[in-house]
Amino acid sequence: MRAMRLATLMGPDLEDAIRTDPSALHDALRDFHPEDIAELVEDLELTVTLELIAKLPDEFSADVLERLPSELQTDILERLSRSDAVEILSEMSPDDLTDVVQDLREEDAALAEDLLQHLEEADPEAAEEVRELSAYAEDVAGGLMTTEYVALSPEKKVWQAIEEVRRLAIEEEAETVNYIYIVFAQKLVGVVSLRELILTESAQQLGDIMTENVVSVRVDDDQEIVAQMVAKYDFTALPVLDAQGNLHGLVTVDDVVDVVIEEATEDAHKMGAVEALEEGYLQTDLLRMFRSRVTWLSLLFVGGFLTATVMEHYAARLSAAITLAIFVPLIISSGGNSGSQSAALIIRALAVGDVEPGDWRRVLGRELVVSLALGVVLGMLGFARAYFAGDTDPTQLAYAVSLSTVCVVMVGSLVGSLLPLAIQRMGLDPAVSSTPFIASLIDVVGLLIYLSVAGAVLGLA
Amino acid sequence: MRAMRLATLMGPDLEDAIRTDPSALHDALRDFHPEDIAELVEDLELTVTLELIAKLPDEFSADVLERLPSELQTDILERLSRSDAVEILSEMSPDDLTDVVQDLREEDAALAEDLLQHLEEADPEAAEEVRELSAYAEDVAGGLMTTEYVALSPEKKVWQAIEEVRRLAIEEEAETVNYIYIVFAQKLVGVVSLRELILTESAQQLGDIMTENVVSVRVDDDQEIVAQMVAKYDFTALPVLDAQGNLHGLVTVDDVVDVVIEEATEDAHKMGAVEALEEGYLQTDLLRMFRSRVTWLSLLFVGGFLTATVMEHYAARLSAAITLAIFVPLIISSGGNSGSQSAALIIRALAVGDVEPGDWRRVLGRELVVSLALGVVLGMLGFARAYFAGDTDPTQLAYAVSLSTVCVVMVGSLVGSLLPLAIQRMGLDPAVSSTPFIASLIDVVGLLIYLSVAGAVLGLA
Repeated sequence: MRAMRLATLMGPDLEDAIRTDPSALHDALRDFHPEDIAELVEDLELTVTLELIAKLPDEFSADVLERLPSELQTDILERLSRSDAVEILSEMSPDDLTDVVQDLREEDAALAEDLLQHLEEADPEAAEEVRELSAYAEDVAGGLMTTEYVALSPEKKVWQAIEEVRRLAIEEEAETVNYIYIVFAQKLVGVVSLRELILTESAQQLGDIMTENVVSVRVDDDQEIVAQMVAKYDFTALPVLDAQGNLHGLVTVDDVVDVVIEEATEDAHKMGAVEALEEGYLQTDLLRMFRSRVTWLSLLFVGGFLTATVMEHYAARLSAAITLAIFVPLIISSGGNSGSQSAALIIRALAVGDVEPGDWRRVLGRELVVSLALGVVLGMLGFARAYFAGDTDPTQLAYAVSLSTVCVVMVGSLVGSLLPLAIQRMGLDPAVSSTPFIASLIDVVGLLIYLSVAGAVLGLA
Repeated sequence: MRAMRLATLMGPDLEDAIRTDPSALHDALRDFHPEDIAELVEDLELTVTLELIAKLPDEFSADVLERLPSELQTDILERLSRSDAVEILSEMSPDDLTDVVQDLREEDAALAEDLLQHLEEADPEAAEEVRELSAYAEDVAGGLMTTEYVALSPEKKVWQAIEEVRRLAIEEEAETVNYIYIVFAQKLVGVVSLRELILTESAQQLGDIMTENVVSVRVDDDQEIVAQMVAKYDFTALPVLDAQGNLHGLVTVDDVVDVVIEEATEDAHKMGAVEALEEGYLQTDLLRMFRSRVTWLSLLFVGGFLTATVMEHYAARLSAAITLAIFVPLIISSGGNSGSQSAALIIRALAVGDVEPGDWRRVLGRELVVSLALGVVLGMLGFARAYFAGDTDPTQLAYAVSLSTVCVVMVGSLVGSLLPLAIQRMGLDPAVSSTPFIASLIDVVGLLIYLSVAGAVLGLA
């Protein structure tokens, strides 16, 4: 809503303001969050955006640019002179700059490399940090971390630490000053909170007041683990170490919020058998949308051929008693539904770290009991429905339907709960055992159960 | 992993340590995060836990107690003397204390009320804040907020503000001092960041340096909106206002991380047709697990009776050409699968604020195009499979199957995408249009389409 108000306010007059009074423009925009201005910029003509960026201070342009979609970032960076572009880029914090450069690489690798070389001349330290941070995958702790944190040696005095914190805060060279990390020979050996610093007598050494057990993550830890740690400990930042315990960076909680939302979206899509989209639903072009769906849908459809094969196998039985065929959709969907429930529970429990593959025995035990109870309830309902199906022998049909329902519901729950655990154990993402995948699998198994059980009960060949 | 280490270290010797040397125990535990100690306490005998709590400083016990499961909190609070319990409770911040009291109310309402009355005598201000915060639902901004924030009037000088921030930081009476909120006649009129405060000349007035456009949420905003705002603006805290613009509290980002995870879990469960669980998968008892599943599963099963009714209606047609029946599971599952894909995309887009119910025309247009393309791909695959089904008239059957597949895939996508939008517009949670629900709906529609289309193509009565 804020952004709409801003757009209505500024939209028509913006071009005028850019031409006539750029400093008044900056004053007017300064009071808005860069995120709102980025939304406004997305609706502008590119030429107007370029004029706007030229007129605004570099720091301000950097704040807006890093929030734009990557395609628009590329369009802008292509059209700016290399020196203007580098001036804006060097105002960004290393982790944001790395994200921009990595996105740019995907759109225009040559431009990204050229800009990095220009950055190397203007600000060698920043270029070095980008190269270092680019080495990590985007979805591990190393890809999320910033290198702007407060690290001091244990023999520093409290008053020296306070001076350093003040300097870093003023120069905006630390993303957070809430924690001061104590480093000895590159190793993280402790942490002191800003509050402890304020409360302690100024001549004391940091090494004497620090907390030694620091909760940390490893550079190659998956972002899901980082999110679990932040959620568990309620820290606003977590230090990132390598295998030797050397401090490399800091993950801040605002980035973790984005990660958690992104991961939940990815999981929801996978559970719906859609490949993860990089952009929002309405932003994804139709061809990409088609591609994200067609592979899984076709695989599931071809897998579904097996149901036809099973049905063909029992064709004689079905011809002999057509009422059997009548209950096929009902019974296989009951298996799919109970399987979906179990899969949703287990996939989510795995995602939040509540269950691990090693818990499979406990999961098996729980699902056996619960699915038996569910199967009995559904079996009784199924008995009633089949009894009134108007068959020549209603009791036998009703027994066949209800017995099959119990079996199919149980098999559905067991497959739905154990398959994600097995997939996780194999090192894959359990969310790929999507609801449609499990439902399709159970279609085949359910048919086999129903048609053989029913055949036996009804005494068919 | 940290917690395991702590438990191994402390577990066997803990009882001894409690008895022989409580102060050494406190020194040993102090270096660990309260979350780890809470995990350790969960595995202890209740009597040992009570001894431990009696020996530790109240502030420390409060940090641990607020992290325990609500049943264990109740067990402990019931057994402590009222005065001991109140001493520990009054060390908690108002929002954590409110959570503990609200959970306690559900377990033992009389005890909760009694403790509140004792708290009223010991710390009337805290009791008042709990009563105020308890008035809000747990899932709105008011239920998430803390009342410990920094609020100053606009005529205060910068140096006065710095003194106040220091005092609050030392006394731990503010959850964050990163933002100083400027309040005039109870209304939020601006915000000053800690950094701006440090950088500004100390004789200036806050009103002159504050940013006036403050991004805020309303006390009755759903927690999902709060999460979207935090994710969008990357703030570490958001002020919470009432309808009149009066400042009531502050939501901090660490609570938002928990909200985002909780909402994603709820949505994942609902999409799998499971009612939301309050505890983790392994912590929920079997009866509660059964209840969370049985209602939806039974409803879906009874709804599935319609498939049997449709099949009965076309029984003559199916008897005449049993190969028709063979493709029933394949075709209805293709509709369910494409519907699941669309539903997953739209429900998630609604959750992150990417799509609104008003966008239904754009959604309809996109789904029409994409599902037609998907339907054509699947239709061709279906043609090939049906052609080799060994029917007497393979071409006609193949036409019937492929034409039905196209229709069913399109209907599946449209229902899967538009139903969540309609449910959201009605003010309900779109995630209740679960994957199984949509699949079951499409089973019926898909059968009607297939059996009537196939009947027409094959020239059956």
